[in-house]
Amino acid sequence: MAETEVAQVRFGIVGCANIARKVARAINLAPNSILHAIASRSIDKAKRFASDNGLDPRVKIYGSYDQLLDDPSVDAVYMPLPTSLHVHWAVMAAQKGKHVLIEKPTALDVGELDSILEACQSNGLQFMDGSMWLHHPRTVKMKEMLFDSQLLGDVNYIYSTSTTSASPEFFENDIRVKGNLDSLGALGDLGWYCLGAVLWAKNYQLPTVVTALPDVTTNSDGVIISCSASIQYKEPSSSGATTNAIIHCSFLADTSMELTITGSKGSLNLNDFTIPQRESSASFEFTLGAKFVDLHIGWNVKPERVVVNCDELPQEGLMVEEFTRVVAGIRTTPGVLPDPKWPEISRKTQMLVDAVKKSVDLGCKPVYF
Amino acid sequence: MAETEVAQVRFGIVGCANIARKVARAINLAPNSILHAIASRSIDKAKRFASDNGLDPRVKIYGSYDQLLDDPSVDAVYMPLPTSLHVHWAVMAAQKGKHVLIEKPTALDVGELDSILEACQSNGLQFMDGSMWLHHPRTVKMKEMLFDSQLLGDVNYIYSTSTTSASPEFFENDIRVKGNLDSLGALGDLGWYCLGAVLWAKNYQLPTVVTALPDVTTNSDGVIISCSASIQYKEPSSSGATTNAIIHCSFLADTSMELTITGSKGSLNLNDFTIPQRESSASFEFTLGAKFVDLHIGWNVKPERVVVNCDELPQEGLMVEEFTRVVAGIRTTPGVLPDPKWPEISRKTQMLVDAVKKSVDLGCKPVYF
Repeated sequence: MAETEVAQVRFGIVGCANIARKVARAINLAPNSILHAIASRSIDKAKRFASDNGLDPRVKIYGSYDQLLDDPSVDAVYMPLPTSLHVHWAVMAAQKGKHVLIEKPTALDVGELDSILEACQSNGLQFMDGSMWLHHPRTVKMKEMLFDSQLLGDVNYIYSTSTTSASPEFFENDIRVKGNLDSLGALGDLGWYCLGAVLWAKNYQLPTVVTALPDVTTNSDGVIISCSASIQYKEPSSSGATTNAIIHCSFLADTSMELTITGSKGSLNLNDFTIPQRESSASFEFTLGAKFVDLHIGWNVKPERVVVNCDELPQEGLMVEEFTRVVAGIRTTPGVLPDPKWPEISRKTQMLVDAVKKSVDLGCKPVYF
Repeated sequence: MAETEVAQVRFGIVGCANIARKVARAINLAPNSILHAIASRSIDKAKRFASDNGLDPRVKIYGSYDQLLDDPSVDAVYMPLPTSLHVHWAVMAAQKGKHVLIEKPTALDVGELDSILEACQSNGLQFMDGSMWLHHPRTVKMKEMLFDSQLLGDVNYIYSTSTTSASPEFFENDIRVKGNLDSLGALGDLGWYCLGAVLWAKNYQLPTVVTALPDVTTNSDGVIISCSASIQYKEPSSSGATTNAIIHCSFLADTSMELTITGSKGSLNLNDFTIPQRESSASFEFTLGAKFVDLHIGWNVKPERVVVNCDELPQEGLMVEEFTRVVAGIRTTPGVLPDPKWPEISRKTQMLVDAVKKSVDLGCKPVYF
């Protein structure tokens, strides 16, 4: 194969879930990837997905996941399957030599995820989960303020929410509230982002202890549809600060995606951290050295808004581009190994999800790391 | 006395704490009140307070609280004393016929507060605590959106913070971290606002259960310097919704005062709810019916900002004006009784403070109402 051909990563989409529409578009938008095939358990559903989304007629359409995984032209899969099916199909994809981009939550627990990661690693394949917001230039800018410049000082407190007001039909039919398909419910689907944001803000240090709050709500299947958790970093940083975080995820409240990071010298806040309100630009606010003026009749500063453009590719396009970049590197350059950063991020996030779930199951007892 | 004289409420300030400077100004700004006297335990401190704040030379200066309370020209007291001294001096003020405007927290516990309220009630006197934000026109506007118009639907979730990054000197010397002066610490000083905001958003319904979160930090005196709590309303509203709230108060984190109220149809958010960033106008944001657009690549709405002017009187002036209005009514119109709304608000807030404190003392066990 010529190098240009190898650098073009050919994707297969395993499962025609709604989110696959967004990622199919991203695969086409990103520069070095191409959608090669899609698969559903039913050929009719796969055909409908192709026509509904105006896919190129050259995209192959399979009526089974196995057929797609057996297609030697597929370099990488994007897998938006129900969580309970991840371990089976992602391990199989890796065994068949496909790089794996998988929707969050990555698995029902870290044990399952480890099977997937092992299969990827032993076959020299890249693994990445579908946390799109990590790839947004706004996230890069915030990281710079948090770590590179230490503008905000040591992180003392983090708060994050991911909530949506689901419809009665969702509670009736969606896989995310079915015990046999996705037993992690709102914790896996939405809490994943909040817990990921806590880890991100702590530069992927694991916490000391995680405790679910008593406000947990489960449905008749025992699936979490709303919960909160306290995440504590008791190990002080070099300057003596510890960090507490609170997260809240819910299918029961109006749409929100808050992230507030409070440091010793300032704080940073945004209210659309996982899906920016507008695709082409996004913003966050920060406040440095906020104090009250004399007599406490106002503040000495107003929050400043930082706007970050995102006009070349949307965040999911940037995710595909990053995944493709690593995969192409592995494929074109002998000796290049998968980037361990992405599986590590996924694994730590899954560990926190597991810990919250365990704490819920234990009646809100603390779970130590 | 002529009616105009009676309508002018003459204030005495008992204790020359820093916050008294702000309220002395408010008493002078509000239309029907006048600062008549100030008292400190030391005459020198009282004199310095008068000259530092440019008080009118006619303001009487006392070197003891008793002397001020014995001045028959004082109609009402404003009392910014350490919390542990409230019950003694507020009861005595009421016994001497003075209406009572008192700083928060109102007392060390609701038992003490009840002694104060009983003394006020049996003497026909108005009681109010110094929660200034309740009097801001922004608060009135938000209440209208929450209750009058039901724009946001049933309240599902409330989040509130009140944090400040205190100096080493504060931790060494301030009364709010001394076990013998103010054993409620950050919970009483800052958590008071958050718990008050939860009650406000629930129209002063008491919750079912309050649970402190494990992230509590105390100092060597056992005083809370940082804590969080979960507040649950398990009794469903008419439409079946329950409400969960999380509050966080701390002397350890950068300045914040968040209030987010999430309903079934929308949400409301502000980041300066107790002390607006600017005195003459304040704002909040709200979002109605937020959904993701097709492909989930953005939102269908952007938060709208509502600006509320506050240019006649600052919020503390409005507080003094409201207190004065009620007091003048009692004094000029036979048969007019104190407004029970304000002591009720204080008492319920104190009950929630007590519940969080009790939960902290019990190692984060739930405390039921």
